[in-house]
Amino acid sequence: MKLTIGIDIGGTNTAIGVVNEKGEVVEQQSIPTPSHGDVDQYITDITNAIAKLEKKVSSINPDAEILGIGVGAPNGNFYNGTIEHAPNLSFKGIVPFTEKLKEKYPKYKESIALTNDANAAAIGEMVYGGAKGMKTFAMFTLGTGVGSGLVVDGDLVYGNDGFAGECGHTTLIPGGRKCGCGGYGHLETYCSAPGMKRTAFEIIARDNAADSILADKSFNKLESKTIFEAAEAGDKVALEVFEKTGHWLGISLADTVHHISPEAIFLFGGPTSAGDYIFKPTIESMEQHLIPVFKDKVKVLKSELSLGHAAIVGASALVWKLLE
Amino acid sequence: MKLTIGIDIGGTNTAIGVVNEKGEVVEQQSIPTPSHGDVDQYITDITNAIAKLEKKVSSINPDAEILGIGVGAPNGNFYNGTIEHAPNLSFKGIVPFTEKLKEKYPKYKESIALTNDANAAAIGEMVYGGAKGMKTFAMFTLGTGVGSGLVVDGDLVYGNDGFAGECGHTTLIPGGRKCGCGGYGHLETYCSAPGMKRTAFEIIARDNAADSILADKSFNKLESKTIFEAAEAGDKVALEVFEKTGHWLGISLADTVHHISPEAIFLFGGPTSAGDYIFKPTIESMEQHLIPVFKDKVKVLKSELSLGHAAIVGASALVWKLLE
Repeated sequence: MKLTIGIDIGGTNTAIGVVNEKGEVVEQQSIPTPSHGDVDQYITDITNAIAKLEKKVSSINPDAEILGIGVGAPNGNFYNGTIEHAPNLSFKGIVPFTEKLKEKYPKYKESIALTNDANAAAIGEMVYGGAKGMKTFAMFTLGTGVGSGLVVDGDLVYGNDGFAGECGHTTLIPGGRKCGCGGYGHLETYCSAPGMKRTAFEIIARDNAADSILADKSFNKLESKTIFEAAEAGDKVALEVFEKTGHWLGISLADTVHHISPEAIFLFGGPTSAGDYIFKPTIESMEQHLIPVFKDKVKVLKSELSLGHAAIVGASALVWKLLE
Repeated sequence: MKLTIGIDIGGTNTAIGVVNEKGEVVEQQSIPTPSHGDVDQYITDITNAIAKLEKKVSSINPDAEILGIGVGAPNGNFYNGTIEHAPNLSFKGIVPFTEKLKEKYPKYKESIALTNDANAAAIGEMVYGGAKGMKTFAMFTLGTGVGSGLVVDGDLVYGNDGFAGECGHTTLIPGGRKCGCGGYGHLETYCSAPGMKRTAFEIIARDNAADSILADKSFNKLESKTIFEAAEAGDKVALEVFEKTGHWLGISLADTVHHISPEAIFLFGGPTSAGDYIFKPTIESMEQHLIPVFKDKVKVLKSELSLGHAAIVGASALVWKLLE
């Protein structure tokens, strides 16, 4: 049985999983992502966790063979294997992450790689999910932010510096909402989970919508799940939030189609659980914003990666791409 | 001496040129693009023109060897070698253009290809121009419309259907200016030559700018060259046209950087003759709209292809890419 290891580095926790060829997580462990900024200590923590996982796996299946380690990290640079100036991590500057991992695992010298979470998710979709066999597609991850990964002719687009695929920060509305990155009007400020909340508050304010279910929640308490539940209950504000979010997302997806003309665009993340509430207006808007030559050609699909494991699974898929 | 043939199919004329390895046009001829819709007759006209060019070339240099034929055509599909539903040509439906050419030239069976003009220009830049040796870059052509070609890891991005790279039709301002394609707010409506004219008229109307040089021209008479001359003369309206055009173009270039993270973006076309008037605000705006990781990394350069010959030269470069 051939297995790969996926590491998902989050701001608070680091999830490490052993993944089989179908993209299923067979063993998993979580350790804190340190706030002390000591990378070497962190690498030691990771290797200890991996040792435990390896032991478990081989006790269950003595024939199990681990092929390598893939890492998904914020500001991860595929070319250099570095994590660069990640604002939510305690490690400052440029961290030579894969180099340090390779020192610990000489046997995986050729099969350790790192990229950012959304790129990893795109590779996961290609290796294990709905994009199997597709040559050109895009992945948009909707969550706290909006991430993206682009695949052209079977390869992830890393660009000149290793950081390509940041469509969440394309300008949707010039001079629009303030973005966490310092910019304005970025897709992320409209179509992330917090973006949907901002839309809800705009609509409530505009309509003085005291009768909305959402009018009883503070800005800090409102979750995108609640907006979905309210939409299902027929709440007008919530329904308009999905209409608007889909409208905006569709404009951006059309822009991406005009760039790379993908076979499909996959959507991943909490908001996609809302099904038609989000997919219907998104597809309508995308089609409306395409030039004729692209109309009715591009599929918009829900990611087949499971919400809870996608980051680990995506990271682990990097190994398969390396070994191709 | 190794030569290639480039064919540039325009709405009115078809330019056919023989191009040397440096990207210089050594012989050239122009024939009308027919309005009669008879493709076979058109192909015969083209082969007659090529026969004359071949004769001329071999009379000057008996060692000259022609390697193949590249075609730049509106709505050109690289994968199928077809021209599909081109609104400005008399040939209706899907024309199997390279297939018909190959019937006439069995010797070039492996070295005949077709794509759209902007893609051809991008390949020309890569084979003969400023993008030599670059792996990932973008080309924007500013003219009657705005075209684009994207190169990722040394290959032009054709996408799933052969039509990728239509950045002129990305949405710059949702619900904005009406575009020739039927859409609204597309980059092309702001940053093409006619887009600049529309901007001039908006500013004149807004400011009641009777004292502008441009206020003496009708909408149908105003050319983008005149706007450049007015800017050089210090005309406030013209100067603002360049500021705004650059501001808008910079937003779009930033969007493209967020997609593919290119080493450089090349600008081609009449408006680029305005030099700093257009490049300065474009670069400032692009930098302003980039997330930190991309800032001060991406060069914005003037295309090195000559204005008059770029389409032929770009088309001819397709042959070199095929023979790689």
